[in-house]
Amino acid sequence: MTEREEAVAERDEDEYGLDPKLVQAILDAVDAGDAAQIDALMAPLHAADIADLLEQIGATERKALVGLWSKGFDGEILSEIDESIREEIIEALPPEVLSEAVRELDSDDVVDLIEDLEEPVQERILDALAVSDRVAVEQSLTYPEYSAGRLMQREVVTAPEHWTVGEAIDFLRNAKELPDQFYHVILIDPRWHPTGYVTLGKLLSSKRSVALSDIVEDSFRTVGVLEDEGDVAYAFNQYHLISVPVVDEDDRLAGVITIDDAMAVLDEEHEEDILRLAGVGDGSLSDSVIETTKQRIPWLAVNLVTANLATFVIAEFEGVITRVVALAVLMPIVASMGGNAGTQALTVAVRAIATRDLTGSNLWRVVRREVLVGAFNGIVFALVMGAVGWLRFGSPLIGVVLAAAMVVNLVVAGLAGILVPVTLEKAGVDPALASGAFVTTVTDVVGFFAFLGLAALVLL
Amino acid sequence: MTEREEAVAERDEDEYGLDPKLVQAILDAVDAGDAAQIDALMAPLHAADIADLLEQIGATERKALVGLWSKGFDGEILSEIDESIREEIIEALPPEVLSEAVRELDSDDVVDLIEDLEEPVQERILDALAVSDRVAVEQSLTYPEYSAGRLMQREVVTAPEHWTVGEAIDFLRNAKELPDQFYHVILIDPRWHPTGYVTLGKLLSSKRSVALSDIVEDSFRTVGVLEDEGDVAYAFNQYHLISVPVVDEDDRLAGVITIDDAMAVLDEEHEEDILRLAGVGDGSLSDSVIETTKQRIPWLAVNLVTANLATFVIAEFEGVITRVVALAVLMPIVASMGGNAGTQALTVAVRAIATRDLTGSNLWRVVRREVLVGAFNGIVFALVMGAVGWLRFGSPLIGVVLAAAMVVNLVVAGLAGILVPVTLEKAGVDPALASGAFVTTVTDVVGFFAFLGLAALVLL
Repeated sequence: MTEREEAVAERDEDEYGLDPKLVQAILDAVDAGDAAQIDALMAPLHAADIADLLEQIGATERKALVGLWSKGFDGEILSEIDESIREEIIEALPPEVLSEAVRELDSDDVVDLIEDLEEPVQERILDALAVSDRVAVEQSLTYPEYSAGRLMQREVVTAPEHWTVGEAIDFLRNAKELPDQFYHVILIDPRWHPTGYVTLGKLLSSKRSVALSDIVEDSFRTVGVLEDEGDVAYAFNQYHLISVPVVDEDDRLAGVITIDDAMAVLDEEHEEDILRLAGVGDGSLSDSVIETTKQRIPWLAVNLVTANLATFVIAEFEGVITRVVALAVLMPIVASMGGNAGTQALTVAVRAIATRDLTGSNLWRVVRREVLVGAFNGIVFALVMGAVGWLRFGSPLIGVVLAAAMVVNLVVAGLAGILVPVTLEKAGVDPALASGAFVTTVTDVVGFFAFLGLAALVLL
Repeated sequence: MTEREEAVAERDEDEYGLDPKLVQAILDAVDAGDAAQIDALMAPLHAADIADLLEQIGATERKALVGLWSKGFDGEILSEIDESIREEIIEALPPEVLSEAVRELDSDDVVDLIEDLEEPVQERILDALAVSDRVAVEQSLTYPEYSAGRLMQREVVTAPEHWTVGEAIDFLRNAKELPDQFYHVILIDPRWHPTGYVTLGKLLSSKRSVALSDIVEDSFRTVGVLEDEGDVAYAFNQYHLISVPVVDEDDRLAGVITIDDAMAVLDEEHEEDILRLAGVGDGSLSDSVIETTKQRIPWLAVNLVTANLATFVIAEFEGVITRVVALAVLMPIVASMGGNAGTQALTVAVRAIATRDLTGSNLWRVVRREVLVGAFNGIVFALVMGAVGWLRFGSPLIGVVLAAAMVVNLVVAGLAGILVPVTLEKAGVDPALASGAFVTTVTDVVGFFAFLGLAALVLL
């Protein structure tokens, strides 16, 4: 390591996020019932860190903390808090604190806050809003979940196409209320169709007399209100977008999505993919034991069926195993290597599907690659295990059977690893969710069958 | 599905990314050697999509395409291209096209383009740059890989602290060259220390006479040049940042990182985590068969050792298996269920470590939760498999052994699933990379030992 790298490694320690010592100090203050001390410790924290704090402490401490520190609650903390404890917190807050907190938020944040809450809790929050905000929120909720319409903010900054830079700046200076964050002025025609946009940087660096239409960005594009938020996030990442106007079915401007929202969606989608690949539902660390137990049952149940299927293959060969018990000792190796090789191939395939890198154009080249990789790795590990099998059990034939079954199963693993997710995707099933179960079924069944079947042919 | 949801599902089809039909048309034009047709088909494509196209087609077609269409190459396409084929493309380009393409790029994009190239190819690109750009790029390369210093762009927009809005706007209007994208004007003191920033939106909506220092953002923060890019990306996501000034060791402004760069880093880190969890190295779909084979060997080799370890446990019980061959049939179930439950727990733990949600403050609560979840799911599946074992082999004792081993292994799986990644993290090893091997070793060994050991005690 160079000095610089060491410095990086050192800085790496807890540069961001919560300091466990601070958390302990806050918990001590909660124990002591010392509201002033809690205020002093929490005041410098960012809303996102306060939300993390609430998620990390136990339910009892959380309740006590919210009781002692409810004045400090603002809307931003509420929107940062994980869904698993959001209702609990909302119900613990005094009504006036809740109203105050919710009224601060932009309409898109309120939508994000309430969309997964139970009806009565939703009502409590909607009641706290000003009438105009309530209408905006209810309108957003008419769009389907995970659509651009839900994600967008309704506050937009627009200008008629024929304006000059000077006119736009004067308009902005006199505007009563502007969104917290905006990056473009969107040009619209008289029928409210967006026709282009100008970055604020261009607006600031151009002379007042320049026409807005002369400094619009080449990269202008819009998305539809019904578009899937995951596709929108993909477009932001692929095309390096900063903000995108959202249009309704008649191509009229309905709102705008900014990159920070897209980044949050991208992050969630990744999280979901990782958890799904591991057979964990949409869990979070603050879910209860019961909820977590339930979330994990489905995949374990599928695996139980899979594992039982494999045992029927083994049962077919009970006779061989009784005569050559070494087979029972060695058989898990072939299945396990196949399972791992299959998981490798399927993970690469699932990612490539998600990033649009695996398409009809290169499918067969990728299939060919996986089969060859499976064959080569099969041969490598066949040689190793053939030798091990021979040396350990003193029988070259056991080595040969083990080696041959290894090659067969690793080729099949590569083939299943790519074809299963592609087929699931075509069938409209999320490949991240279901591929693992199918692929390991294939590698278990083929692994045991190839090994024990060959053994029955060769050894008896 | 409501009508809206159907519409979403419909729009979902290939809204972004490459159309396979278009890819085919381009390949046909390449076959026909029709440069004009290629030009016509490629012209409307975004650089990112062209890069995807080059990655998806075979090496032979790629070479032919680059030969026929080299005029069209610009710097943006080069920076979008995956590292696995970047050198190949650069070497195929005529020198004058390469120079032209590279000169267009900002310094941070050139750094990103060349940092992983071989020395001679790097030299070719550096030679193509203007001297001042070359110096900037070489300076960036002195920062360690994956540091904020490498990620930042050096082009910054600054203003003295005492300026007014009017002065800032006049300065921007007269500036010869401004960065393509910028979102803040950074205030600096006479010693070049950043002291705050003003959003362009605030600048545009404030009167000319307002002091910049009166409209700075509360959320101002800086990052150090040596900070890890992953930490920087975390900070962007956690604190909803848009751009952040980067400071050197003396706290002087060195550059700025914008959210689109942070989003790309976040995306890469996620990709890396997913692939590492599956035991795949830093592979990509356009890697060759040989490279891919090599990338996958290490994890398969680790798994081979693991699987062999487990066979020694089985070998200890050869005597029992010979007498009760049903044990050989059923034993993979216990190991397989443990492996899956362990993977679930470790994936949740690895993610929680990456998102700073698992800390010293909640570690023991999470451990307790995993153990309880393991116990509850162990009991659920013990009941099922106990019954299956009994019915299938007509022996209640086999059912009892299977059930007891299941509970033991699922509790151990939960415990290992959380403690292994936490321990690896403390030891400075990436938990995404190594947890799987350790956890499955534990669940395999414990699974076989618990099942066969109990069987030896109870059945003999």
